[in-house]
Amino acid sequence: MADIAGVALGEIARQLGGELIGSEATVIDRIGALVGATPSTITFFSNPRLRAQLDTSDAGCVIVGPSARDAGAARRAVIVTPDPYLYYARLTQWWVARGRPALQPAVHASALVDPTAQVSPGALIGPFVVIEAGARIADGAQIGAHSVIGANASIGAGTRFAPRVTFGAGCSIGARGIVHSGAVIGADGFGFAPTEGRWEKIEQLGAVRIGDDVEIGANTCIDRGALDDTVIEDGVKLDNQIQIGHNVRIGAHSALAGCVGVAGSAVIGKHCTVGGAGMVIGHLELADHVHISAGSMVMRSIRKPGVYTGVFPIDENASWEKNAATLRQLHSLRDRLRVLEKSLPQDKINDPKTA
Amino acid sequence: MADIAGVALGEIARQLGGELIGSEATVIDRIGALVGATPSTITFFSNPRLRAQLDTSDAGCVIVGPSARDAGAARRAVIVTPDPYLYYARLTQWWVARGRPALQPAVHASALVDPTAQVSPGALIGPFVVIEAGARIADGAQIGAHSVIGANASIGAGTRFAPRVTFGAGCSIGARGIVHSGAVIGADGFGFAPTEGRWEKIEQLGAVRIGDDVEIGANTCIDRGALDDTVIEDGVKLDNQIQIGHNVRIGAHSALAGCVGVAGSAVIGKHCTVGGAGMVIGHLELADHVHISAGSMVMRSIRKPGVYTGVFPIDENASWEKNAATLRQLHSLRDRLRVLEKSLPQDKINDPKTA
Amino acid sequence: MADIAGVALGEIARQLGGELIGSEATVIDRIGALVGATPSTITFFSNPRLRAQLDTSDAGCVIVGPSARDAGAARRAVIVTPDPYLYYARLTQWWVARGRPALQPAVHASALVDPTAQVSPGALIGPFVVIEAGARIADGAQIGAHSVIGANASIGAGTRFAPRVTFGAGCSIGARGIVHSGAVIGADGFGFAPTEGRWEKIEQLGAVRIGDDVEIGANTCIDRGALDDTVIEDGVKLDNQIQIGHNVRIGAHSALAGCVGVAGSAVIGKHCTVGGAGMVIGHLELADHVHISAGSMVMRSIRKPGVYTGVFPIDENASWEKNAATLRQLHSLRDRLRVLEKSLPQDKINDPKTA
Repeated sequence: MADIAGVALGEIARQLGGELIGSEATVIDRIGALVGATPSTITFFSNPRLRAQLDTSDAGCVIVGPSARDAGAARRAVIVTPDPYLYYARLTQWWVARGRPALQPAVHASALVDPTAQVSPGALIGPFVVIEAGARIADGAQIGAHSVIGANASIGAGTRFAPRVTFGAGCSIGARGIVHSGAVIGADGFGFAPTEGRWEKIEQLGAVRIGDDVEIGANTCIDRGALDDTVIEDGVKLDNQIQIGHNVRIGAHSALAGCVGVAGSAVIGKHCTVGGAGMVIGHLELADHVHISAGSMVMRSIRKPGVYTGVFPIDENASWEKNAATLRQLHSLRDRLRVLEKSLPQDKINDPKTA
Repeated sequence: MADIAGVALGEIARQLGGELIGSEATVIDRIGALVGATPSTITFFSNPRLRAQLDTSDAGCVIVGPSARDAGAARRAVIVTPDPYLYYARLTQWWVARGRPALQPAVHASALVDPTAQVSPGALIGPFVVIEAGARIADGAQIGAHSVIGANASIGAGTRFAPRVTFGAGCSIGARGIVHSGAVIGADGFGFAPTEGRWEKIEQLGAVRIGDDVEIGANTCIDRGALDDTVIEDGVKLDNQIQIGHNVRIGAHSALAGCVGVAGSAVIGKHCTVGGAGMVIGHLELADHVHISAGSMVMRSIRKPGVYTGVFPIDENASWEKNAATLRQLHSLRDRLRVLEKSLPQDKINDPKTA
Repeated sequence: MADIAGVALGEIARQLGGELIGSEATVIDRIGALVGATPSTITFFSNPRLRAQLDTSDAGCVIVGPSARDAGAARRAVIVTPDPYLYYARLTQWWVARGRPALQPAVHASALVDPTAQVSPGALIGPFVVIEAGARIADGAQIGAHSVIGANASIGAGTRFAPRVTFGAGCSIGARGIVHSGAVIGADGFGFAPTEGRWEKIEQLGAVRIGDDVEIGANTCIDRGALDDTVIEDGVKLDNQIQIGHNVRIGAHSALAGCVGVAGSAVIGKHCTVGGAGMVIGHLELADHVHISAGSMVMRSIRKPGVYTGVFPIDENASWEKNAATLRQLHSLRDRLRVLEKSLPQDKINDPKTA
């Protein structure tokens, strides 16, 4: 994928900015890592721990920050920019847009579009797509093969669905979104009333409302709300295999890594992150700028920004077995410690500060 | 979704029972929460902690229990019923059934149905569905777009599949089931014999047998058995993103929340619950009425009903780091405590009960 | 599934080897477990703890190791072989191959194959499959219904895709692979550059390269690499609901159980195993022959072969609550213990070895 027709370094700098030190004529045909780079590779240097890789890289050009200007230029060309990682991100976008064949808006002959659906003439509808009554597909949107767009759903301008996305009735997504394969938006929330040892289904009457610039990973699920809607605000990024329960709200520009679960009615603030397999119990609230470490289970609301963790440290199995067994007696160990403390005359106990 | 043509309160009470206090003529056009309700909204009150919301709700009618009769009626209409949450569940069902267009049983022209499959004339088969040889689809069943029904599989009366369900060869589901989008029933169990550093596949010869009134969430997987079948008994409710291994048995009316995993040959009793991301190791047994908290890993069989938990408590990262590091020495701390205890003359140690 | 036309025991031994003690003419019509076996069932005995089941099994033939030869033969026929479980695995393969209708290579009339794709005349392409430009499907490969094969992707000889697999542009899989329903290979890795409180997408330019003899479970995701490729080596077995991040490398013959997550750029060695819901943080390395227990989170690189665990032990909820609360004070408990130790004259503290 990374190899498309080459481009002169000068053209890159003209398109994306930065200060180019080196020959504008150098032809670049690949974006790559520092290691394995060739004289026609452009790469970036943003992690100071990789300094040795910078010094030995054979890359034709390295995108560097001001502090690495000299080190980078000591080899071949550099582009100096305040945030090399951000420059790299934008370079990949420009690179892919350059290599991508021009979109030919069309509805594939095999797609089934209800006559009452409104599909923009600027949209691209793939093979075997099903679009139900009253759905609206905006300009520049792309719906991948085998996707199903439910009745009265709405897909914003420029939003792209990979193949095999289910987007439920009445749900909406804004502009410039990306939804990956296998995602299921708008399945029923998990709601039942217990009665006489059985579960009586509560029909889920809400929908899912998704803002602009949202990316949703492969096989991720977002359930529709029970009464009100499940809400994903602008700029949220969801990785693969995530489960978002009914009536959850995720604040703008929060990012959730793979395998995360957020149970019903939880509210996650803006600019939060949840590491892989992190879990948030239902009906909790996370303030803005809360960061949950991978594998941690959030069992209470968190009102203060910060980093929070709760993971049993991994160890050799034999050590773990001993410590885990002892853990089940921890409370009684504390009691025994307290007894000991009370058993010693107070003047015999050294001050902890000096211990 | 929640807004369909209005209905008189008297009609609701006639259909669903309960004691209506207030005007039968009040028109209801929405089921909603206490907060945000309007005079044409019907809502319910079942959680005593929301009492303030009840008092200030502008809802046209609130479904209440006997103890909230007066408080509810002090505002506008109430329907009094022994279990308001159950009444609400049934109201949503009636509401949705009312709004749902009458099903036109048919096989969509684009569906591929093997000539030896038996599809009831009362079933609805969606676009691009594939039904293989010998499969049976009972009366009132609905198969969503792009679903694949394997050879000799059996779908019970009134069971509804959302789009994009894979239902494997020889598997069966009973009546009135619901299977959400992306679910995969009957993929191979994960079985291999190790040999000379490689894995030799064990073909999975069993199927999946699912009872009546079972709901299966989006992107949930239930593997077929190795020799015998994987069994999901009547009334089981599975949320999204669940993994059920081969030869598992889940007892009637148990409910598993999102992201749960149950490894091969585990047996879960009846009326159990597993919270989100709970995990059950293979070959274990859980008695009836066992409740596993979210995020807990069941590593041994549980013979006694009750609530069981095993989650590392979340904390500010700095605190967690200290405690987690100490946890790896916990067993030796216990030994050191024991040494201290033995070091003190027994008569010097105060009795724990009085400590 | 397990019941197909019977076969004489002698034929089984001729095909698969082993020493048959008993009548060659015995007709076998089912592979089953020790319990529930009938005189026409063949089963196996490899777990010494099931010895009582062996003695009472009514199976027509039991596959046994040399040490169980006499016990097995005391009932009905046995096949003696050094590794009964491996023999059983191979028997299931032969059994299924025998019962499977001969493959009729063909491209289903409803499939959409780009004219520039190269589909071997010996491949089987199912209904509604989409094969994009430049993709190559080798001899004996089978692509299940509704699967989508991206541009320039490559599927090796004899590899079988279940229905509803997404296999992204430029990705490749070797020979004799199995990919189950709902798997998504080659979705974008989760890569963003933060800027001014937003996330700037990093286009993912790598692909996914998968070796020979790899099995990938239902609804499992493997993301494409950011710059270089994500690599799954020969013989790897991935269960259902797994998430493999971008640029991960999984060494040959490693096996990952259901619900596992491996974050970006992690490197897992050869012959490793990860138990269900185990998680590996990004950028870590696991040596060859490392075994991670179910539910454990790998937070640091592991250089030494062995078994590693990190799971909070499950307990009755009331006990867990006490211990978990105390755990949050564990570090201070250690300090208090240290104070006590320092408070006692050293000669008063008994030696731990003798305590």
